[in-house]
Amino acid sequence: MTYREDVEGLDAAILMHPKVWEASGHVENFTDPMIDCKQCKSRFRVDTLGDSIAEKKKKKILEDFEQNLSEENKVLLETITQIHPEIETKFEAILEKKELAFLLLKEANCPNCGTKGEFTEPRNFNLMFKTFVGPIESEDNVVFLRPETAQGIFVNFQNVQNSSRQKLPFGIAQIGKAFRNEINTKNFLFRTREFEQMEMQYFVNPNNDKEHYDAWKERRINWYKNLGMDTENLRFHDHPIDKLAHYAKEATDVEYKFPFGWGEIEGIHNRTDFDLTRHQQFSGKSQQYFDDELKEKFIPYIIETSAGASRSFMAFLVNAYHEEEVNGELRVVLKFHPKLAPIKAAIFPLVNKDGMPEIAKEIEAELSQFIKVFYDSKGAVGRRYRRQDENGTPFCITVDNQTIEDKTVTVRERDSMEQVRVSTDALLVYLLNKLK
Amino acid sequence: MTYREDVEGLDAAILMHPKVWEASGHVENFTDPMIDCKQCKSRFRVDTLGDSIAEKKKKKILEDFEQNLSEENKVLLETITQIHPEIETKFEAILEKKELAFLLLKEANCPNCGTKGEFTEPRNFNLMFKTFVGPIESEDNVVFLRPETAQGIFVNFQNVQNSSRQKLPFGIAQIGKAFRNEINTKNFLFRTREFEQMEMQYFVNPNNDKEHYDAWKERRINWYKNLGMDTENLRFHDHPIDKLAHYAKEATDVEYKFPFGWGEIEGIHNRTDFDLTRHQQFSGKSQQYFDDELKEKFIPYIIETSAGASRSFMAFLVNAYHEEEVNGELRVVLKFHPKLAPIKAAIFPLVNKDGMPEIAKEIEAELSQFIKVFYDSKGAVGRRYRRQDENGTPFCITVDNQTIEDKTVTVRERDSMEQVRVSTDALLVYLLNKLK
Repeated sequence: MTYREDVEGLDAAILMHPKVWEASGHVENFTDPMIDCKQCKSRFRVDTLGDSIAEKKKKKILEDFEQNLSEENKVLLETITQIHPEIETKFEAILEKKELAFLLLKEANCPNCGTKGEFTEPRNFNLMFKTFVGPIESEDNVVFLRPETAQGIFVNFQNVQNSSRQKLPFGIAQIGKAFRNEINTKNFLFRTREFEQMEMQYFVNPNNDKEHYDAWKERRINWYKNLGMDTENLRFHDHPIDKLAHYAKEATDVEYKFPFGWGEIEGIHNRTDFDLTRHQQFSGKSQQYFDDELKEKFIPYIIETSAGASRSFMAFLVNAYHEEEVNGELRVVLKFHPKLAPIKAAIFPLVNKDGMPEIAKEIEAELSQFIKVFYDSKGAVGRRYRRQDENGTPFCITVDNQTIEDKTVTVRERDSMEQVRVSTDALLVYLLNKLK
Repeated sequence: MTYREDVEGLDAAILMHPKVWEASGHVENFTDPMIDCKQCKSRFRVDTLGDSIAEKKKKKILEDFEQNLSEENKVLLETITQIHPEIETKFEAILEKKELAFLLLKEANCPNCGTKGEFTEPRNFNLMFKTFVGPIESEDNVVFLRPETAQGIFVNFQNVQNSSRQKLPFGIAQIGKAFRNEINTKNFLFRTREFEQMEMQYFVNPNNDKEHYDAWKERRINWYKNLGMDTENLRFHDHPIDKLAHYAKEATDVEYKFPFGWGEIEGIHNRTDFDLTRHQQFSGKSQQYFDDELKEKFIPYIIETSAGASRSFMAFLVNAYHEEEVNGELRVVLKFHPKLAPIKAAIFPLVNKDGMPEIAKEIEAELSQFIKVFYDSKGAVGRRYRRQDENGTPFCITVDNQTIEDKTVTVRERDSMEQVRVSTDALLVYLLNKLK
């Protein structure tokens, strides 16, 4: 890790005033269209309705649906078919068009009870959690739990810039919880109602937004690669112009190939001056920046790198998991980059006597001032190695008979399983260098 | 910092099911009695009503109040007067007794509009923020934002113990946000609706609870002292038996002397088996622990160290703030312990030429791999020192003419303002040792 001088940290509020979310567009736009099955009362996000339907069945539904279309809707469908020739994505695209979705739903079955076409009309449901400040539960007292950490950064832009004396370009970063009232959570940590984000908003001169956008794209994908994520499981998914969010001029997702398919783990956006302009408008406070050198006042553009800490965690975990055959036995090993491993080194006295536990305890006491270690004196050393392999511990240190004689220990590296002897005096520095 | 092998980390959910808060007692007990002024509609926590009334006025109110008491209430008042002979605490104690509070309120004036005795009856108001999971806002879908991180640890006790293979005594710690719907926030970070806790729950055999309670008391107050908090501004406030919370067998507060008076920054409690017993009862899942050596099954006792990260932050900030006269000028300096300083070292080229910026940038590049540094090349060095004094930066490194000759730099220590020359090769190790 290198500290960047041009990025400041922040810990903004989770409960934020509705005005912030009006300015951001969340009150108006952060909604999902929902339908209920009239029969079994199950509720679904419209666009997830296709998830459980086989392709063959989808084809049949689409055929029935196409026969009953008005001329106007036929034209709309043709446009969709041109962009999405494949059934899977065509089906989804139709569900995203309100006027068509309702007709398609007449032909679809409830994924829960199987009843055909018995759905309510799609209604928009806001995904922000709301609560009330104070004892009176009235609209006047509503606050929202933040659905993203970004807005907390935007509304603190002037605050941070003034106190940190940063000049453009500079960033504000924060790691923290965000909350979305998802109807359908799925894929373990991939979609949950409460999750951890790690976001950085980089404020730039509008004249060189593209340059910074491209640079951050590169930096961010390299961050995952440098922490050991397999290159073939990482890709950019650039958003086509017609799919851009309302605030974005250019956007890409960093995607990881999970066992359930490709999924976004980070979004990188050129948000232009959309956010600061809106907050200036809604707050009545100037969000302009004065550039000393250019002698110019303007609202900065924002390049956003918005990573899911929970999703990245899952991606690193999946990426690390390996099953290998070693000497005819199955070895389960988490090949975490040493920086990500929860335990950095395990310390084993070979046997629980002959002074070995004493030396092992001394090593533990020294190392634990700097890194998280784990002491294990039980069972055969082979078994102890396997336990640490499953934990993803990159280094195992064994105190043995030779240690008593020459003050060296065995350091065994997790992935190669190679062993070297290191003097106990040099052990800390040896490990710190490996963990750099 | 030393990693404790017997303490595991956790990041539990913020939105938790109401059953958890029924088991914990929060649904029933986590309430404040509230009154409204009928005249101006202001709302107050009953026990804060005395805050804005002068002692003389309080004496007068008490006299009027005492004249109108029934025999039964007179006996109650006598008991209170014995425990609280002083007017301040007596006034508060009366407000805590519902049957007396109502009578006392008849004599008191509204702190907002001044109207006398026009209050509603005290009503209990739950301090937990509630929200709804899913699109339907019904009682069935209520969840609460956690008002403390502790319960998230208790409900994960079996989970963590099983997966970590820890044996008693061991702890589970977490740092995270908690939320309380406080009516009256006050004293900057001291009472806010959203705040950061750092809690550790230590699970012990009921036979040696006292020993662990005492040990953690010592460890915790020493933690503040070792990080530079002035001893004379720290004290324990042991809770008297009759004031213990419903879950506690023994309890103390660590208090810091803020400019506004003594305030709790941490609570240390012997919570007995109250919590795990309740969660066992409400969940139907055994919370017993099997002790291998004793061959016994029992519900562990819990020693809790519950620190306010936000409050401690404010205490460390207040404690660090100093104004000093140096050479006839005022110096404002934040005397943070180096571990707490946000910037560890500042790097100054003496002048912006003669190769000094180049060397300073090299030093910055090396150090910033390990610690947060700040580069400043503007203005007189004296002014640059002052700016870092105000930031609390413990070390300032100056690259000067001598650096060009012998590759040494000046390291100036913030509090003593003493300067030493250190070789650039040895600089990192020099600083890391100071920051240990």
